[in-house]
Amino acid sequence: MPVTKSVRRLTAYTPGEQPKAKDVVKLNTNENPYPPSPQCAKVLADFDLDRLRRYPDPEFSALREAIAKMVHVKAANIFIGNGSDEILALSAKAFVENDEVIGSLDPSYSLYKTLAAIRDVEWRGFDDLCEVKGEKAKKLSLFLLTNPNAPTGVLKPCAEVAAFAKRFKGILIVDEAYADFARENCMSLAADEKNKNVIVMRTFSKSFSLAGLRVGYCVGPKPLIDALYKVKDSYNVDAIAQAVALAAVKDAKWMRANVKKVVATRRRFVAELEKRGWDVLPSESNFVFARPAHAKASEIFERLRGRHIYVRYFSGPKTVDRLRVTIGTDGQMATLLAALDEFDK
Amino acid sequence: MPVTKSVRRLTAYTPGEQPKAKDVVKLNTNENPYPPSPQCAKVLADFDLDRLRRYPDPEFSALREAIAKMVHVKAANIFIGNGSDEILALSAKAFVENDEVIGSLDPSYSLYKTLAAIRDVEWRGFDDLCEVKGEKAKKLSLFLLTNPNAPTGVLKPCAEVAAFAKRFKGILIVDEAYADFARENCMSLAADEKNKNVIVMRTFSKSFSLAGLRVGYCVGPKPLIDALYKVKDSYNVDAIAQAVALAAVKDAKWMRANVKKVVATRRRFVAELEKRGWDVLPSESNFVFARPAHAKASEIFERLRGRHIYVRYFSGPKTVDRLRVTIGTDGQMATLLAALDEFDK
Repeated sequence: MPVTKSVRRLTAYTPGEQPKAKDVVKLNTNENPYPPSPQCAKVLADFDLDRLRRYPDPEFSALREAIAKMVHVKAANIFIGNGSDEILALSAKAFVENDEVIGSLDPSYSLYKTLAAIRDVEWRGFDDLCEVKGEKAKKLSLFLLTNPNAPTGVLKPCAEVAAFAKRFKGILIVDEAYADFARENCMSLAADEKNKNVIVMRTFSKSFSLAGLRVGYCVGPKPLIDALYKVKDSYNVDAIAQAVALAAVKDAKWMRANVKKVVATRRRFVAELEKRGWDVLPSESNFVFARPAHAKASEIFERLRGRHIYVRYFSGPKTVDRLRVTIGTDGQMATLLAALDEFDK
Repeated sequence: MPVTKSVRRLTAYTPGEQPKAKDVVKLNTNENPYPPSPQCAKVLADFDLDRLRRYPDPEFSALREAIAKMVHVKAANIFIGNGSDEILALSAKAFVENDEVIGSLDPSYSLYKTLAAIRDVEWRGFDDLCEVKGEKAKKLSLFLLTNPNAPTGVLKPCAEVAAFAKRFKGILIVDEAYADFARENCMSLAADEKNKNVIVMRTFSKSFSLAGLRVGYCVGPKPLIDALYKVKDSYNVDAIAQAVALAAVKDAKWMRANVKKVVATRRRFVAELEKRGWDVLPSESNFVFARPAHAKASEIFERLRGRHIYVRYFSGPKTVDRLRVTIGTDGQMATLLAALDEFDK
């Protein structure tokens, strides 16, 4: 059997279900309910086919410049990947030796554990950052901190992250997939040249409504960014993705208007859940992590699924009693709430 | 310094130059001189932005089915990557243990050596397949065979590849990036269920004129294909790339017409070079590897570059006396020949 031992052992990551039917209420993978900027459609309609004949810009110069301007850093401090997922996989390669360890909070983005398994290194979970010390921090060379966290939605204040980065010996990647929905973020840590070990990662999948496009980026110290360039595939971001993401950046006000709507719906939806006795963690993202008042989370998950309403349920010991519900449109949330009310009858 | 030792040592792969000016004669990265199918433009113009909100199909079902039909294999035997480059990187992960070795012919696609360095394993080059035996074949778990080869353009008959696959103990990936330009190919080896160790890889970058899109695929035994699925990023091929590649497959006759034109131009261009005393290796691809009659290859390379005519020059000991010239349009080849004639005056 010529497949490597670690890959044979590996259980693949299970992404949230992507039902093929279109008439479902899909609140399970934190997609934005509003479409991306119309400028993206314009780019597609006007796209010069001749550009597809040629290889894309391997350094995504135009997109990098535009992102640099948007987040107020230098283009040389930016790396772009085929989704944040690719940046994570490349980081596991560039920043972790074979005998080192990848750490993250537990619970957090469940991909991290699989990522360590694919990289064939140990993964270590922590209840909180204060526990990352002493014997437990040994050999820890990369810490992946989703902030706001998933699936909890809870935000760590930037000051707390900064203090952790200062005392942590390895590289800290702050995965800010949901930062646009939060009241603050850690971009200033990545932009600060005094910090040698902090990378802040963002994606176009959530706030920019471009999950289908696969573009993520990160900001950090040049030696770390350069290492990612060294290990990436030559042309990892295709020509169309570069152009569409560029159009989205140039129309960032469209994104911000969508974010505002999602945040308003989140506030209303949380109030509705609490009215029904659910326990909802304080969310700074485009989803909530909530414990039902009466029934089991797994049971509600299945009953909703039966009505083509998809939410996310994680069976692990720390997550088993809650559901993660993406914030959709007001209409979608109303459909979900109506279903919950019927279950309660 | 928290970047891994192997990455610090690493010299990044140098892809062929992608000049940003459009008015150049670009014959350096084996791009197709003819545009992709007009159906691809139609897909872009009609693309429903709502599909970008959502994550793409992680199993690229529609594209996989269409490719399966085109190459006469089962969809379950197909894997699709963000360019063939990604398939190569995932294969290095899935099929090579930390103490094993990646092999290829030398010269061959120069990325292979970098790929082994990124994977932090030994790379071993061979003058020919008959040398892959005994002590030299020890620990060799993956062999990457470009066929037709690059930069030579020379095709190994399928029977010879089949004989090698039979006696080789590791996994053989036949990288058929240029197979559509050749008189035969090895797809039958990947389709044959008796072969447990042969993967045939193709790309949309060359014959389909879609280098900018980043889609490659491979065909092989299910256990090997399944291993690639296990180690890939969840959503490695974006929604637009899946749709555009699907349109290209459905209009494969467009691709075949372009290939026919390129092959005809290749025949005429080889005759012209030979008339001028150049030594041209017999090419079965969309480029030729040729030794100039009078001047040094490096010198001609530089002089052409000065006129915005880009060809490829590899400085290695086995390649130093030749140029690799992509077959463009008849007009582009005439421009190149006219420049060569002027240099000779």
